[in-house]
Amino acid sequence: MAQKPSIPKGTRDFTPQEVAKRNFIFDIIKTEFKKFGFQAIETPSFENSDTLMGKYGEEGDRLIFKILNSGDFLKKADESAYADKDSLKLTPSISEKALRYDLTVPFARYVVQHQNEIDFPFKRYQIQPVWRADRPQKGRFREFFQCDADVVGSDSLWQEVEFVQLYDSVFSALKLDGVTIKINNRKILSGFAEVIGEQDKLIDFTVALDKLDKIGEDGVVKEMLAKGIAEEAIEKIKPIFGLQGDFAEKIEALKSILSTSEAGLKGIEELEFIQNAISEMPLKTAKLDLDVTLARGLNYYTGAIFEVSAPEGVKMGSIGGGGRYDDLTGIFGLKNMSGVGISFGLDRIYLVLEELNLFPEAVADDVKVLFVNFGEKEALYAFKGVNALRAEGINAEVFPDSAKMKKQMNYANKRNIPFVILAGDEEMAAGEYTLKNMKTGEQDRLNLKDIIAKIA
Amino acid sequence: MAQKPSIPKGTRDFTPQEVAKRNFIFDIIKTEFKKFGFQAIETPSFENSDTLMGKYGEEGDRLIFKILNSGDFLKKADESAYADKDSLKLTPSISEKALRYDLTVPFARYVVQHQNEIDFPFKRYQIQPVWRADRPQKGRFREFFQCDADVVGSDSLWQEVEFVQLYDSVFSALKLDGVTIKINNRKILSGFAEVIGEQDKLIDFTVALDKLDKIGEDGVVKEMLAKGIAEEAIEKIKPIFGLQGDFAEKIEALKSILSTSEAGLKGIEELEFIQNAISEMPLKTAKLDLDVTLARGLNYYTGAIFEVSAPEGVKMGSIGGGGRYDDLTGIFGLKNMSGVGISFGLDRIYLVLEELNLFPEAVADDVKVLFVNFGEKEALYAFKGVNALRAEGINAEVFPDSAKMKKQMNYANKRNIPFVILAGDEEMAAGEYTLKNMKTGEQDRLNLKDIIAKIA
Repeated sequence: MAQKPSIPKGTRDFTPQEVAKRNFIFDIIKTEFKKFGFQAIETPSFENSDTLMGKYGEEGDRLIFKILNSGDFLKKADESAYADKDSLKLTPSISEKALRYDLTVPFARYVVQHQNEIDFPFKRYQIQPVWRADRPQKGRFREFFQCDADVVGSDSLWQEVEFVQLYDSVFSALKLDGVTIKINNRKILSGFAEVIGEQDKLIDFTVALDKLDKIGEDGVVKEMLAKGIAEEAIEKIKPIFGLQGDFAEKIEALKSILSTSEAGLKGIEELEFIQNAISEMPLKTAKLDLDVTLARGLNYYTGAIFEVSAPEGVKMGSIGGGGRYDDLTGIFGLKNMSGVGISFGLDRIYLVLEELNLFPEAVADDVKVLFVNFGEKEALYAFKGVNALRAEGINAEVFPDSAKMKKQMNYANKRNIPFVILAGDEEMAAGEYTLKNMKTGEQDRLNLKDIIAKIA
Repeated sequence: MAQKPSIPKGTRDFTPQEVAKRNFIFDIIKTEFKKFGFQAIETPSFENSDTLMGKYGEEGDRLIFKILNSGDFLKKADESAYADKDSLKLTPSISEKALRYDLTVPFARYVVQHQNEIDFPFKRYQIQPVWRADRPQKGRFREFFQCDADVVGSDSLWQEVEFVQLYDSVFSALKLDGVTIKINNRKILSGFAEVIGEQDKLIDFTVALDKLDKIGEDGVVKEMLAKGIAEEAIEKIKPIFGLQGDFAEKIEALKSILSTSEAGLKGIEELEFIQNAISEMPLKTAKLDLDVTLARGLNYYTGAIFEVSAPEGVKMGSIGGGGRYDDLTGIFGLKNMSGVGISFGLDRIYLVLEELNLFPEAVADDVKVLFVNFGEKEALYAFKGVNALRAEGINAEVFPDSAKMKKQMNYANKRNIPFVILAGDEEMAAGEYTLKNMKTGEQDRLNLKDIIAKIA
């Protein structure tokens, strides 16, 4: 019986045009990753559940796709959980594997597992899909690609400098000019909490602060109060809400705000190092900006925090982010391995390029030439021609059936094939082919050598 | 607590060297696919279970990885199956999605779902991982890539001709000379069953025949007898066991064996068409051979059947296969859509290239230059140099820390980086860099322009 075909919600089919556009982005990212010395690794789509569970918080655990054990899986089912019909408790006994939720935890697992073969510092990139059982919505999918570059095994701040340059290089190569690379430092945020005497509320404080551009100063104050942060503490920190000026000016203001915090001053020093290096080696098209409200996954990052926003005028969340984490591999038993990394948001970058019309016209590796098929004898002659073109690296095809001319020309038009070649008795006798330019309508009878020269 | 990291059995991590080698193969396959006019599509990693289940037989159903529903999945559990602790019966009520088992069924689903946007004949290729809960063994994995090219919407035999050429082009581009492209036709097999009066035992007959090169003539006869095929019928068909000679000679022999079977003669006609076209357009390095014992997924193929074997002397199963199927999309409600396709066995091709030492030496997109880091001031000078090299498309990096010289040189050696650049006070004063060739030991003090010329 025929089924009406569909795909699971939150997943996507990609048409040839979409694949070509996505590959346009992937290829540029990969090329820049390689220029910067990053090496590709790949990890399995599913990991042992205990590799993933507990690494992303309770909410994360819930959003991890679990794979049902094969065979008679109920045989090993936890009996009390089964009796209680307790899904959560039953899961570990009937599911041992889970789909990867991000690329960071598998990377940490990889580094620990392969530590003896790796030459540190290890600069790896990884471009693979991840899966999350999130509620699908506009721009949020259950299967999507992450594009990560990380370095582990060095705490040099030059890495941060390089990641700023890498962002700039990728977005410049994509011709997406005018993105803002926002930078902050976990130590700045710790400094704020310290100077207002609310170290124990660091997370609440920064989660609220992070929302400044969404809910405004009043909203942030309200949320801080609700979280039990003292009114006089908030009063003390108010100058950071309105921090103005360029990078250097903001740094100066911070020096005064954080003058009593050792962590804060260390954070300032790190930011200055990065800013100085970048001013010595100016960015191509991106802008580096200090954003002291930037927090992202705070309980994760220990130094620099990055986020990239689309050019002004484009409504889109961040199109990239990252930061430094001092103990990525500790969860798997390898201590003191500092790492720093960034990520590119493929789907959002795609939408931005689409909105700004930045995909090159000929992004698809499309067919350049269609040979019309007039029948068996002519088809063989056409195939000999197509072979010669392919040997020169030209993508070309022969229409497989000797269908009506109109149908074949329609196919060429719909596929946006720029050249059509026709060859009947006359051409065959002369050892030539008639080349038709589908845009201009121009027609020429030429030999293969001249056709190749004309097309390539 | 630290976990000892591992990955699920049957899955693999790929190191940078392995990724580079795999991409070497993928890139060649993609380039040839595109030259032949195939377009890439991608489908989701998981499909609705009812899209996959029942399409691969009972054994296939068992080997499909099922994804556990999210949240309180037991709420919707089938009550009687739950009470009976019946895993098989319970599964559909707690799992609605499953990982893709191959690329063919998702492709059929795609064609039906997108039929109104597709310009037929549709030449698509798809290179994505698939998952099977098979018992892992040497060369058999639970996650592996398939590389498929198919055409749907045309029953022209020129497609078969093109697939022979495509196989030849890919293996020639891989420098894997001397593969044999074996071809057969379902109609030949039907013809055999017909002339010996055993049409109703077609499957048993061909399954046994397919084993000829493994178990020999006596083994095949024994298995046919065991399946109830009459002794005199087997006697009649014995000439095919020892079919000798080149393509044309085998065809002549078949014409006499199958003279009374309409299907058989049609099969011969199709094979001759393909053979004639190929003799008009000789293959580059592969050999086309007729193998009347070739059956593969017989209940699937309706016309041509392909299989590629590695060059003589390499012990390896088939490294590619495919064929024509007249009703691929019928299961999803789109009738009369003839298709033909082939597949490349990535993992086996990898092993063959490895065994024959056919991977190019510089297959990795490796770093060409390492700048030694002598300290903060020198590092900035080094970074300016690295920027200039990257701008010319040269993959280069600066060692992130001003570690001991020996450590940095070690890193360059282990990573096989061919050039190292050193720059201290003298070089900085002169606006130059010292370039060291790691192979020859040769050192030159040069400006950046000359360095770029020397490296590129």
